[in-house]
Amino acid sequence: MINAKLASQSHSEHQTIVKLSETVAFGGDELVIIGGPCTVESLEQMQMVAETLSTAPVQALRGGVYKPRTSPYAFQGMGETGLDVLAKVRSQYNIPVVTEVMSISQIPIVAAHADMLQVGSRNMQNFDLLKALGEAGKPILLKRGLASTIEEFVMAAEYILSHGNPDVVLCERGIRSFDNYTRNVLDLGAVAALKQITHLPVIVDPSHAVGKRELVAPLAKAAVACGADGLIIECHPEPEKSVSDARQALSLEDMLSLVDCLKPVAVAVGRSIAIKTGVDVKSAPIFCAA
Amino acid sequence: MINAKLASQSHSEHQTIVKLSETVAFGGDELVIIGGPCTVESLEQMQMVAETLSTAPVQALRGGVYKPRTSPYAFQGMGETGLDVLAKVRSQYNIPVVTEVMSISQIPIVAAHADMLQVGSRNMQNFDLLKALGEAGKPILLKRGLASTIEEFVMAAEYILSHGNPDVVLCERGIRSFDNYTRNVLDLGAVAALKQITHLPVIVDPSHAVGKRELVAPLAKAAVACGADGLIIECHPEPEKSVSDARQALSLEDMLSLVDCLKPVAVAVGRSIAIKTGVDVKSAPIFCAA
Amino acid sequence: MINAKLASQSHSEHQTIVKLSETVAFGGDELVIIGGPCTVESLEQMQMVAETLSTAPVQALRGGVYKPRTSPYAFQGMGETGLDVLAKVRSQYNIPVVTEVMSISQIPIVAAHADMLQVGSRNMQNFDLLKALGEAGKPILLKRGLASTIEEFVMAAEYILSHGNPDVVLCERGIRSFDNYTRNVLDLGAVAALKQITHLPVIVDPSHAVGKRELVAPLAKAAVACGADGLIIECHPEPEKSVSDARQALSLEDMLSLVDCLKPVAVAVGRSIAIKTGVDVKSAPIFCAA
Amino acid sequence: MINAKLASQSHSEHQTIVKLSETVAFGGDELVIIGGPCTVESLEQMQMVAETLSTAPVQALRGGVYKPRTSPYAFQGMGETGLDVLAKVRSQYNIPVVTEVMSISQIPIVAAHADMLQVGSRNMQNFDLLKALGEAGKPILLKRGLASTIEEFVMAAEYILSHGNPDVVLCERGIRSFDNYTRNVLDLGAVAALKQITHLPVIVDPSHAVGKRELVAPLAKAAVACGADGLIIECHPEPEKSVSDARQALSLEDMLSLVDCLKPVAVAVGRSIAIKTGVDVKSAPIFCAA
Repeated sequence: MINAKLASQSHSEHQTIVKLSETVAFGGDELVIIGGPCTVESLEQMQMVAETLSTAPVQALRGGVYKPRTSPYAFQGMGETGLDVLAKVRSQYNIPVVTEVMSISQIPIVAAHADMLQVGSRNMQNFDLLKALGEAGKPILLKRGLASTIEEFVMAAEYILSHGNPDVVLCERGIRSFDNYTRNVLDLGAVAALKQITHLPVIVDPSHAVGKRELVAPLAKAAVACGADGLIIECHPEPEKSVSDARQALSLEDMLSLVDCLKPVAVAVGRSIAIKTGVDVKSAPIFCAA
Repeated sequence: MINAKLASQSHSEHQTIVKLSETVAFGGDELVIIGGPCTVESLEQMQMVAETLSTAPVQALRGGVYKPRTSPYAFQGMGETGLDVLAKVRSQYNIPVVTEVMSISQIPIVAAHADMLQVGSRNMQNFDLLKALGEAGKPILLKRGLASTIEEFVMAAEYILSHGNPDVVLCERGIRSFDNYTRNVLDLGAVAALKQITHLPVIVDPSHAVGKRELVAPLAKAAVACGADGLIIECHPEPEKSVSDARQALSLEDMLSLVDCLKPVAVAVGRSIAIKTGVDVKSAPIFCAA
Repeated sequence: MINAKLASQSHSEHQTIVKLSETVAFGGDELVIIGGPCTVESLEQMQMVAETLSTAPVQALRGGVYKPRTSPYAFQGMGETGLDVLAKVRSQYNIPVVTEVMSISQIPIVAAHADMLQVGSRNMQNFDLLKALGEAGKPILLKRGLASTIEEFVMAAEYILSHGNPDVVLCERGIRSFDNYTRNVLDLGAVAALKQITHLPVIVDPSHAVGKRELVAPLAKAAVACGADGLIIECHPEPEKSVSDARQALSLEDMLSLVDCLKPVAVAVGRSIAIKTGVDVKSAPIFCAA
Repeated sequence: MINAKLASQSHSEHQTIVKLSETVAFGGDELVIIGGPCTVESLEQMQMVAETLSTAPVQALRGGVYKPRTSPYAFQGMGETGLDVLAKVRSQYNIPVVTEVMSISQIPIVAAHADMLQVGSRNMQNFDLLKALGEAGKPILLKRGLASTIEEFVMAAEYILSHGNPDVVLCERGIRSFDNYTRNVLDLGAVAALKQITHLPVIVDPSHAVGKRELVAPLAKAAVACGADGLIIECHPEPEKSVSDARQALSLEDMLSLVDCLKPVAVAVGRSIAIKTGVDVKSAPIFCAA
């Protein structure tokens, strides 16, 4: 049904593992949790984020420096200055960083500063960008388009794979619907389908999907239960002051609490969440009521 | 934002419990699993279903006797003969039954044979039916419309509540989208939202949502992790011979296996699945890989 | 592709003509314009509407007396009193009236007072209502469901046809989308498709489709150009005071002006708009700029 | 409601006119019809198209040489060789050409060969491309994204305007819906809304919207009646042999016939279609039945 060659399940009998660092990899039993703000705002901000998240099993940081904004008059991101912030925090806390690349010309500098290059929803079918990322030499986080079919999503990955880069992680982040009570509709059926269609790791962004912080936790648990290989979740030292997507960011405390609650769900489906701080899963709060 | 009165959270500080029988109730810690075929086809079929499912913690049977079909030439259900089948199986196996009612005139006879009356997606805004169900004297399973907003869904429940019937269970069953790889898109963000908006129990129908049996299990787990109060899942002694929705029905064996795998997910979010047969949750297969 | 029998084009080599009165018929060269308020509010209101519209080629009046409202606490319509209003205006101005029927029990009394029975979008797949309308003895105006496919729409008509009533007019009234700038999205591709699939007349409701009065005129013209057999347009003596859908109703003056502007469009596609008042199409304002 | 500055109606009390050549301009009384194949396949093909279309009031040619394809294995277009074809036909027949640009690096060469640069639906929010097109020095044809809101569409234009290029023409080409009977749903409500929101010209692509050639004509007429400033229509010397979108291309004969039928519709809404060949609109076939 889906005419992918390299992305198709039959290409590989074992799940593809995409390594972000020596110790962090997508696609294994261990889930990868990525946390951080929508937008890199300052070094202090990112240090606070890294300081707190590194006490929990959050394996990578996110933070946008090139921002796709509906309006040309909205803040477009810190650009190269933001990349320097990411590089400093990455080095200081020994944690991989993921950030978005919006055009071909940004690839070299972003690849020099970050561990993983994100393709945003609006660029999922920016085919020339996808082709160029085939030669980026870094893992790619490919977010599903706002109204892209599962087939189009897999074929977008195929563009990257067929141009030389085998390290693609797919990210379901909600699709558009008629109801604006939630920002988008998280399509976990697509996650389940993708796990059967392709050998590529599949992660979920519940923050952009639902757009309201009080609904992020149940969807994060659902994503893990459904078989996702990881999560990317927005959090911010002061969510209400976030320069973008303030309504959906968790506080850092809530982020830590959420990750604790995800552990038993992961175990329930035969997965685990990395234990950085020596906390045993058995001592984790077992009853994080839904 | 949502102008419900009786259905709103503030109406009740505690979760509403909807009782299906002396031992089966929606809204408590224990999840309710409803299983059975799309359509009641014969007494033998329903006895096979009940015989097998009663060995597992499936607390209620489903089976349609009045069927809403796109074509007037498709099988419209066994009607009253089917109600007799349901009544026999209900009595023989001491298990509650749920079945759909499509018009006001069917309410008395369906209420006399079944424990819970289902309103199908196509009738979610059949307001005269909803008003009449306010006086049905039986619990109502209200399925979300194919493209109904969360607000419309809650307000449809409000029609039933405001006409005298407090026993309404909401059921998310997938909404329409642009992608036909899956039949519909299961909207678990709506489930999470509904749990915060209303005190009514909320269950999930992963079978109609996804429309492919190989994708039902991951979505069922996701629904439990997300906080659903129960599930309604299609299963059939011979799925491929089902007169309707054959593509999405589980075999009875797969149904049993699925319920086993749901137990640890329920525990992980502070819930449980009823233990009928003395099987301890601790001995259940812990690693039902996602 | 669409498995209709009676509704399919091949059933009839000539367009079905649905007669509303001795002089008003859907499906011929002459377009049928239906005007009136969303809701019947009083005899005075409907008399004002009829008084003004009867000076223009508006061949039928609309006005709801049983209203499908999202909230049970919203005004549900005048009911039988409203039917009396319709009957009086119908008689006084010798103009056919169309009104919605929401349940089987309302069919006899509505059929006794109105010339055409409307099935609203929310009831398009209320199959028991459709079956009963097969025996209503009056023409049916079947509105497309909020998210119904073209196939489901045609098959809903097939329910009515196959139960004995050949007089069905289809009405496209906008479908749900992700964009709420307009209330719905008018699907004129569906109108074009329906004209090829079925021999039944197809009309368009631009008012509910777009939900903003300033956008009704261009869509009404588009519908005529596309091949619609008629229009149903909301208008009100004092639009801003309308008890429902105030935002989309035209004033009566704008309604008259719109009908004038539709005439040359109808002529441009080989159709005409009935001339009641002796006004020649040639003297109508030819340049009603789009 | 829509926070555009340069694109907003208030910026300009008169309609913006976008000139494609000395004699062809979007936004005036005269509509602009663009015709041609989805993909440039050979010089012979484009000469046949130009030869035929130049006998009718088709003011510009379309033809893709850089093709956005779902699969990386599908034909990606002739590239620079195709640009040479376009340039030859443009010169030979003295007709402007429009073609798509997919990446920043293609802008200079495309701008050197074509009169107007098209941004495809998948790139509507490729913001870096939009910024670069602000300095392209050529008019831009901006197609609406597959699931973009009206606001996003206008703000995408704002990116181009605010980066220095005032010559933007918007193109509605259908949005995604739940029904796959037609390829997309043409949103003429958006066209009507855009005509009120912005001073930029708005044209319509009925071919991609509906995806079936037998439905193109009624939608083209509807677009004109609705107030569109022009049309872009796919046609091909041998539609069934088209390398892409074969199902929706008109034959050249049908294209000529369609343009004839559009003339009276244009006149009916106070517009006109350019008369190249001395054919008077009064002698055009007046009754092109819908």
